[in-house]
Amino acid sequence: MLYFEDFTVGRSFDCGTFRLSEDDIVEFAQKYDPQRFHTDREAAKHTLYGKLIASGWHTASMAMRLIVDAVFGQSTSMGSPGLTELGWKKPVLPDVDMRVVITVEEARQSKSKPEIGFVLFRCEVIEPNGDVALNWRGNVMFGTRG
Amino acid sequence: MLYFEDFTVGRSFDCGTFRLSEDDIVEFAQKYDPQRFHTDREAAKHTLYGKLIASGWHTASMAMRLIVDAVFGQSTSMGSPGLTELGWKKPVLPDVDMRVVITVEEARQSKSKPEIGFVLFRCEVIEPNGDVALNWRGNVMFGTRG
Repeated sequence: MLYFEDFTVGRSFDCGTFRLSEDDIVEFAQKYDPQRFHTDREAAKHTLYGKLIASGWHTASMAMRLIVDAVFGQSTSMGSPGLTELGWKKPVLPDVDMRVVITVEEARQSKSKPEIGFVLFRCEVIEPNGDVALNWRGNVMFGTRG
Repeated sequence: MLYFEDFTVGRSFDCGTFRLSEDDIVEFAQKYDPQRFHTDREAAKHTLYGKLIASGWHTASMAMRLIVDAVFGQSTSMGSPGLTELGWKKPVLPDVDMRVVITVEEARQSKSKPEIGFVLFRCEVIEPNGDVALNWRGNVMFGTRG
């Protein structure tokens, strides 16, 4: 079980990789983000991207799944008040292994509620060539060992 | 069809409402955010929230769907480079109608690519009592009439 105290500044967690098929991309997008460059392979050819790309909400949600499986699911996580940044830096294409890594940037215990600590994470979703396709920065609340 | 020029500063779009059932919340969370306050009604009683709440990624994705249906789907949208803020201000509970409103905060035509303009939107997901449960701020690229 991971508590607030385990999230020391600089600590990184490799959460593994995910890979989306064209069908995965279209299925998510039809439900949540039905823009043509996410739902229609033919129409996508005539857009800025020239091909089908994953919805940024899909990529972020897939990253979250890996983070929960690898880290938050075995922790005292109490959820997040939000992100200060969410960058969709590069398109996420079908059939590419995307690695998810989170790193602790700051950690502070609440003064008013010492049983809670806030951990600021940087999340990066990384292409096989090392380029960051998606990143975010946000706080997560954890219970302390107290 | 909405072009860059149609997104004038201050213009607001009411994108309608969505409502998530407990089953919807659990289904999304099992796939993308399996933390116990999103997936397990009984376990959620013993968390900070005291009940099942929707994943913030789910709420954001539902808002996106309404925005695409109401605005971006009938526009020259070319996607978004990211958000500068994504706030999960209040938990989103089952069976509550959440209204989605987007407002243009800034609009600027690209100097290097005058056929593209960047529109900075504020998105708000609002409870029936008027409280904002989720907000974000981010740019979307649109084709110009040019």
